[in-house]
Amino acid sequence: MNLVLLFENDFFPDSSTAKLTGRRFKHVKNVHKAEPGVSLKVGLANGKTGEGLILSMDRDSLLMDVTVNTDPPPPLPLNLVIALPRPKVLNRVIGAAASMGVKNIWLINAYKVEKSYWQSPRLSPENIIEQSILGLEQAKDTVLPTINLKNRFKPFVEDDLPQIIIGTMPIVADPSGLEPCPCEIKTPVTLTIGPEGGFIPYEIEMLKRCNFIPVHLGRRILRVETAIPAVIYRLFSPLLL
Amino acid sequence: MNLVLLFENDFFPDSSTAKLTGRRFKHVKNVHKAEPGVSLKVGLANGKTGEGLILSMDRDSLLMDVTVNTDPPPPLPLNLVIALPRPKVLNRVIGAAASMGVKNIWLINAYKVEKSYWQSPRLSPENIIEQSILGLEQAKDTVLPTINLKNRFKPFVEDDLPQIIIGTMPIVADPSGLEPCPCEIKTPVTLTIGPEGGFIPYEIEMLKRCNFIPVHLGRRILRVETAIPAVIYRLFSPLLL
Repeated sequence: MNLVLLFENDFFPDSSTAKLTGRRFKHVKNVHKAEPGVSLKVGLANGKTGEGLILSMDRDSLLMDVTVNTDPPPPLPLNLVIALPRPKVLNRVIGAAASMGVKNIWLINAYKVEKSYWQSPRLSPENIIEQSILGLEQAKDTVLPTINLKNRFKPFVEDDLPQIIIGTMPIVADPSGLEPCPCEIKTPVTLTIGPEGGFIPYEIEMLKRCNFIPVHLGRRILRVETAIPAVIYRLFSPLLL
Repeated sequence: MNLVLLFENDFFPDSSTAKLTGRRFKHVKNVHKAEPGVSLKVGLANGKTGEGLILSMDRDSLLMDVTVNTDPPPPLPLNLVIALPRPKVLNRVIGAAASMGVKNIWLINAYKVEKSYWQSPRLSPENIIEQSILGLEQAKDTVLPTINLKNRFKPFVEDDLPQIIIGTMPIVADPSGLEPCPCEIKTPVTLTIGPEGGFIPYEIEMLKRCNFIPVHLGRRILRVETAIPAVIYRLFSPLLL
């Protein structure tokens, strides 16, 4: 936790004093070993970042006085469309994407997405927000991503994707791609990544009809959680560094 | 598993016939749903890749006739030195590094590496090889990485690192770096990545005395498993794509 993300209901009414309990309190106490008088990096959810001066601490909570004045790091101009990964991988993918500044994510169905994945409790709004928060805290960002679940491939590609890709370069990372993934590009991107085992040809055809260009990532087939940072830093290095 | 990695003791003596049992057999049967007559992508450990034609299958094993003729993807010209991550993260880091073609890995100590991490059963040679194999199978590679454990920072930096960096550009990814991480470079690299919470200033100073240049990855602090693919694809994109 490189930043403590604060929400409106952490604050006393009309006050700059916030009260931390639960996971965030325990982390500050046990990992940061912070004490009254110490300032911590904080941020307001969807707002600015700054400092929180710890005023007091008891067994279960702490009070901090909060001053914010700095914008969070800029968001990535990226729409990320991912075939729903295994539940075990989902948390890591959301956290990693949030930590890199992805703000628009769609988790979609595909032929090789196992049906049971859609029943996972990890798809609950509570868990998705929690994983997003962990990613933001890691990267000192405050702006929560929007994560959309789309459990039907065809209607998503036909009805939603044409709107999503407006003003962006639509690419799908797929071993069938004849061109390599572009690098250091200046325009917004809609990036689609398939499931383990890849999209089937019918799905690639549908994406192509929606103007997606299949691009490859080289001879090596990467896991989704490895491919996402690799592609994002290839596409947007100048924005991120 | 995009390639079945085969070892000498999978083969009958002086024969191109191999017998698969255990995890690999179960994966081929249950995930690939392969049957006799089907050919699978295979590779010989530290050797060439090719095809394995399934000759027969019973409940616990299968026999395949193996032909190999293609070199595996080229290795990355990278020495990867990582502060030992949490055991939970270790498996993913080894798998990801192996899948991207890293062949020389050092897991080292640092002030902020918790001592208990060195006691983890995940550091057993069996587990490290298993995780490497999973990464190679993912990326259709055959060449096992060498993974060295160095549980004392100072002797490692003073005695081992000067040899390791010969012929390479030595960089350490650290938020203190004044320069951004280089990109698309043509020389071999020795890349050092610190623990959660970073290297302490004393450690950065020691690395600098060993000619390491601290380079930053931008405002966002990434988890090690996200930083590794991001940096590798930034450094070596032309080699990988």
